Formats: sequence, structure tokens, C-alpha cells
Amino acid sequence: MSTAVAGKGLEGIVAANSGICFIDGDAGVLAYRGIDIHELAELSNFEETTYLLWNGRLPTELELREFSSQLALAREVDQRIVDMLKTFPTSATPMEVLRTAVSALSFYDADEKDNSHDANVRKAYNLTAQIAMIVAIYDRIRKKLDIVPPDRTLSHAGNFLWMLNGVKPSDTATRTLDIALILHADHELNASTFAARVIAATLSDIHSAITGAIGALKGPLHGGANEGVMKLLLTIDKAGADPVDYVKNMLAAKQKISGFGHRVYKTEDPRATHLRRMSEKLGKDAGQPKWYEMSRAIELYIKQDKKLNANVDFYSASTYATLGIDIDLYTPIFAVSRIAGWAAHVIEQLDDNRLIRPRADYIGPVYPSKYVGMNERR
Amino acid sequence: MSTAVAGKGLEGIVAANSGICFIDGDAGVLAYRGIDIHELAELSNFEETTYLLWNGRLPTELELREFSSQLALAREVDQRIVDMLKTFPTSATPMEVLRTAVSALSFYDADEKDNSHDANVRKAYNLTAQIAMIVAIYDRIRKKLDIVPPDRTLSHAGNFLWMLNGVKPSDTATRTLDIALILHADHELNASTFAARVIAATLSDIHSAITGAIGALKGPLHGGANEGVMKLLLTIDKAGADPVDYVKNMLAAKQKISGFGHRVYKTEDPRATHLRRMSEKLGKDAGQPKWYEMSRAIELYIKQDKKLNANVDFYSASTYATLGIDIDLYTPIFAVSRIAGWAAHVIEQLDDNRLIRPRADYIGPVYPSKYVGMNERR
Repeated sequence: MSTAVAGKGLEGIVAANSGICFIDGDAGVLAYRGIDIHELAELSNFEETTYLLWNGRLPTELELREFSSQLALAREVDQRIVDMLKTFPTSATPMEVLRTAVSALSFYDADEKDNSHDANVRKAYNLTAQIAMIVAIYDRIRKKLDIVPPDRTLSHAGNFLWMLNGVKPSDTATRTLDIALILHADHELNASTFAARVIAATLSDIHSAITGAIGALKGPLHGGANEGVMKLLLTIDKAGADPVDYVKNMLAAKQKISGFGHRVYKTEDPRATHLRRMSEKLGKDAGQPKWYEMSRAIELYIKQDKKLNANVDFYSASTYATLGIDIDLYTPIFAVSRIAGWAAHVIEQLDDNRLIRPRADYIGPVYPSKYVGMNERR
Repeated sequence: MSTAVAGKGLEGIVAANSGICFIDGDAGVLAYRGIDIHELAELSNFEETTYLLWNGRLPTELELREFSSQLALAREVDQRIVDMLKTFPTSATPMEVLRTAVSALSFYDADEKDNSHDANVRKAYNLTAQIAMIVAIYDRIRKKLDIVPPDRTLSHAGNFLWMLNGVKPSDTATRTLDIALILHADHELNASTFAARVIAATLSDIHSAITGAIGALKGPLHGGANEGVMKLLLTIDKAGADPVDYVKNMLAAKQKISGFGHRVYKTEDPRATHLRRMSEKLGKDAGQPKWYEMSRAIELYIKQDKKLNANVDFYSASTYATLGIDIDLYTPIFAVSRIAGWAAHVIEQLDDNRLIRPRADYIGPVYPSKYVGMNERR
């Protein structure tokens, strides 16, 4: 049995070849298909970025128009899914609901049994449009508000805000969310994407892979961290405490602060750079700089004291808060974006597939241990 | 960036320490907590084996009685889940339904937000009882038959057959399924278990992990293979073809035969040994040796021609067929058993957790590629 022992959590193990996402953790570089995330955040939009992730290059004007209109046309959720959402208890968290609804989507997908490249691209369009819709629709349902029909003239980000709030979003809000969606769209073999690839590699269907990915994203060591950040800010605010003192006490009590540190980046997470800037600008423009200022104070202290950098989750919290979005939608919004990367990775995995099946190092009772009869046990 | 490149599909990479399952693929050894699978298949039952997997040792008589009665008491599915199952289209496959229903179970689990060891053990009892029930209940619903209430005096295997068929199962049928459940209960870091651990390691909840595992098990390179085997046997039977000729032609056309070969075993899969024996005996006793005989002929030919051994999926097909179980329930029954191992692995992962986050080797467009303006693209 020839095996190699990986670091815990597969740290530093190259588990796949991938042409989707380039990360240089030492230099703080993130690029989709070779294009730096800073350029994309400034110059692209979510639709174009999704095209790039799926097709490996930027679209022409005609291609982008067709792609965006395909995505807009896919803004349709089977009525039976909406009816199902209405039966869920309002205590169900949006991530549990999203996980369940995405799993159920496969019932009504005409391509469910077709696992070909082309069928999965079609399903990727549908899933990208539907995940955003399900998050917005369930939020309306649980708040006992009318469901807002999709507006196919709006961008992906704009339509999501429209369906969530029932009012046409401002350009600033739309562009802010659009940039957040670009920044969250892919991140190589993060835990949810890796889970999606492990599932897809059994030749199961893309709905299984994305359902599993949503379950992974939900965890506080992954997408769930942005909710953790905002809960902390709210707690500090409610207590009227000084943010730095508060965090100092938490660290002294060995409590973990969400939104700091990253397995891959040894320097600043390039996504945090943009989210910090947006958080600051939004807060200033809205005359509500509180969340940004608290965040910044905490960031500087933790950077100095613990040598830990803010990650993508840290400033997405104050950004979404200033946009007026409910805390328990932060992680679902991560999914609204990350579906672009998940789909790209599932399709890439299937284009050159092998079952992902590592080994474990056995540390249990010695083999062979005898099956001892009931009377001899104690 | 210090990284090590793994074989494709993480072959030969040790991704975790685990005290649950010992496999020696060269010697054809499988053991749960050190006890050989042959001893367990002959002497144990599913409840005792599950206790062993979860607790690391065999139970005393009192412990086993308490454990079995806890599992039997957990035979309860929230009425809202049953109502939801009734709304699903009968075209939905049992694996899609199981994936969706297990995801929805978290809505009604009082412990949903508690990810402690003890809470997860409680949830493991519930999930083990509920997965079997959901498979049986949905099968009754889609066949427009009355739902059969659980019988808490029966064993796990017996109650499943009872709820599935609405008649008290024979001792032979119960014991056959019981042994099949023992054989399928765990298999170290197989793809579904690995998916469960990747999801759990984000500190997401056990329902997310098991939902993802069900999605992975569904794939034809994993649990889905047992359905593939039976579909082949039925096709050969319907065509009135000679099994060996048929398979010879398939191989000549480069088609894959389900149920052969295994990443880990270089010799006979020890689970196949038992399933072959059960398939033969059941077929003989039922005066219906056809499926066994076809299977055996195919096995001998492929062993000789391709040097491939039958795996756990190959004889589970003819075994379940002889028990009169529908083909699309074979993989769900795999889940009815494997939940024991999934739960053990999720709990083990959380007892000493680290996020599972490997890296990819980037093979895409060179970094930095410029973001080219729309007018310059072609």
C-alpha cells in the first residue's frame, strides 16, 4: 500500500489541476482565468465574470448580451418549489432552506438524468438564476410579504435586490452588490467547492454537488463567518463597548474572532481590500459610518496584536449591513455568487473525471481484535 | 508556497487519521474498530455494529439493549416531512427524495443549532432511524399505498422491510438485509464519507454533511453502481442473451461494467464474499437461481479476462432482487446502512477538527492576463 500522508485538513496538498482560479497566497494575488481580481472588481460585472469563469475568456459584446439574457431568462422557479417554500417553518434558517430547495430543484429539471457537459451548462444557468431567486422568495415568504416577480431587464445583482426588497435598487446598491458577487464568485478549492467536486466525481448530478456545497458553505469556518462578524459588531454596539477592548477580552478568553486569517493568504486577502473600500464609502454616503469604523478599529488591533489579516468575510458584514440586508442572508448571498465558481468546478471536474477517494491512517483498536461473545464482554 | 502534488482523485493520499475502519487492500481485509468484517457479518447485527462504529467497542448486553431501544424509539418522522414527501412528483428518484428530505429534517430537529458531540450523537440516532423510514415511506407514497407505521419491536432491518412491504418479513429476509447492512455500514474515506467530513469540517451541521454524503453516494462510481449491475442483468435477461457473450461485447465496445474493481482492494472485496454467498443461498431457497447464476458467470469471465474482482455492489444487486426489492431502492438501502459510518466519521472529524482545504495546480491562462476592454476583444 503506497500512501503519502497529507497535512491535517489537506493543507498544502494539490488535489486537482484547475484552470479556473489562480491564487498566490504569499503575494496576495487572486485571479479568475488569469485576470486579476482587482481589474475584475473595477471593470467587470457579475454576468461577465461568470462567463469568464465558465468559458475561460472574456465574452465579446454579442456573447455577453446573449449570456446575460440567457441568465435573465432562467429567472424562473417552478411553482411547486415556491409552494414547498411556503410550507417550511419560519424558524428554518435561509441556508437550510436553500440547501433543501436546491436539492428539490432536480425533481423539476428536465435534464436531471443527463450528466453531459452541455446539460450541465444548461443546469448551471438555471441554478445561478434560481439560487438568487430562492433566497429572495423565501425571505419574502417568511416576512409574510408578497413575492416579487423577477424583472428580466435588471442585472443579476439588481434583480436580486428588487426581488428581495420590492423596490427598484439604487445604482450604488446594485453596483456594490455586483462587486461583492464578483469578489465571492470563485476561490479555487475552498471547502464548499472541494465538496462539490468530491460529490460530482462519483458521477452524481450537479444538483447533488451544489446541495453539498451549500451545506459546506453554511459552516462558520467557511461562508458562515460573515454572519459571525456582524453578530459580533451588533453585540459590541448593543453593549456600548469599545470595540478594541471587547475584542481584547475575547482573545484573552481564547475566543475566536470571525473574519480573520486564511489558510491560503499569508498577506492581505485581495478581496478584503475592495470590501473595506466599499464598506467605508457606503457608510459615509449613508451617513452611517459606525459599522465601518468599528470594523476598522478591530482590524487594526488584530493585525497588530495577532498578525492576522481581515479576510473576505470581515468587511462583507459591514457592507451588507449598510445595504440594509438581514444578517442571516449574508451567507446565502455568498452562495448567490459562489454558484458561478461551483458550477465551473463541477463541469471542469466532469470533463476529466476521476473518483476522489483518499485513504485514512488507521489509529483504532489493533487488527485483528476478536469478536468477543456477549457473555465475555465487560 | 509549499505544496505536494497528489495522485489524481487523491489516490494514495492519507487525508485523515481515523480509528473507525481498517482496510488492507492487498490482503483483502476490512475491519470495523479492529474486528474483521467476516466475524461481524456472521455474528453481529446492524444495531450492534452501529454501536461498535460509534463507540469504538462492542456493547455489553445492557448497553446493546438500551442502544437498540433508543434507535427504535427514534423511529419517528415529523408529519410535516411526510406531508412534504406527498407533494413530490412520483418521477423523483428515491435518492433525490432522500437527499431533499434529510436536508429538510434539520428544520424540525430541536438540536439543529447545537453542534456539540452529544447533540450530534442524538442526531445520529434520529438520522439512522429516519433515513430508513423516509426510504420506506416515500416508496409507499409513490406506489399509492398506505404508509405503514413503524414497529418498534422489530430490528432495524426487520422494521425497514415491514414499513416497505406492509407484511411481517421472514427471518431469512430480515437476516439477509441485516447482514447487507453490516457489510455496507462503513468503508473508511470512501467518496460519500469523505464528502461528509469535508462539509462537517467547516463546522456546518450534521444534516448538511449527511445530505452531501447522500448526493455523493448517488453517483454510479459509488453507491449508484448496484443499480447499474441489476439493470445490466435485466437487460441481458430480456434479450435472452448469454451473459458472458453480452459482457464480452460490452467490453469490446469499451463500455464499463458496474460492480467490478475497487480503488482500494487489489484482491477480493471481503464484502463480495458474503454477498455472493447470500445471493446464491437466497436464489436457491427461493427456487430462483437465475440472477445468481448470471452474476457468477459474469464474475468469472471478468476475473479471468480483465483481472477485475467483483466489489460490494456486484452481488448486492442479485441479493436485493431476490428479496423482491425495487432496483431504484438499492442505492437508498446503501444509505440506510452507511449512515452508521457517516455519523461516526462526522463525529470523529468534529472531535479533532480542522478545515479540509486542499490546493489546485493552476493550469489556466497565464497570470496576469489583461482585462481587455470590450472593443478590443475578438
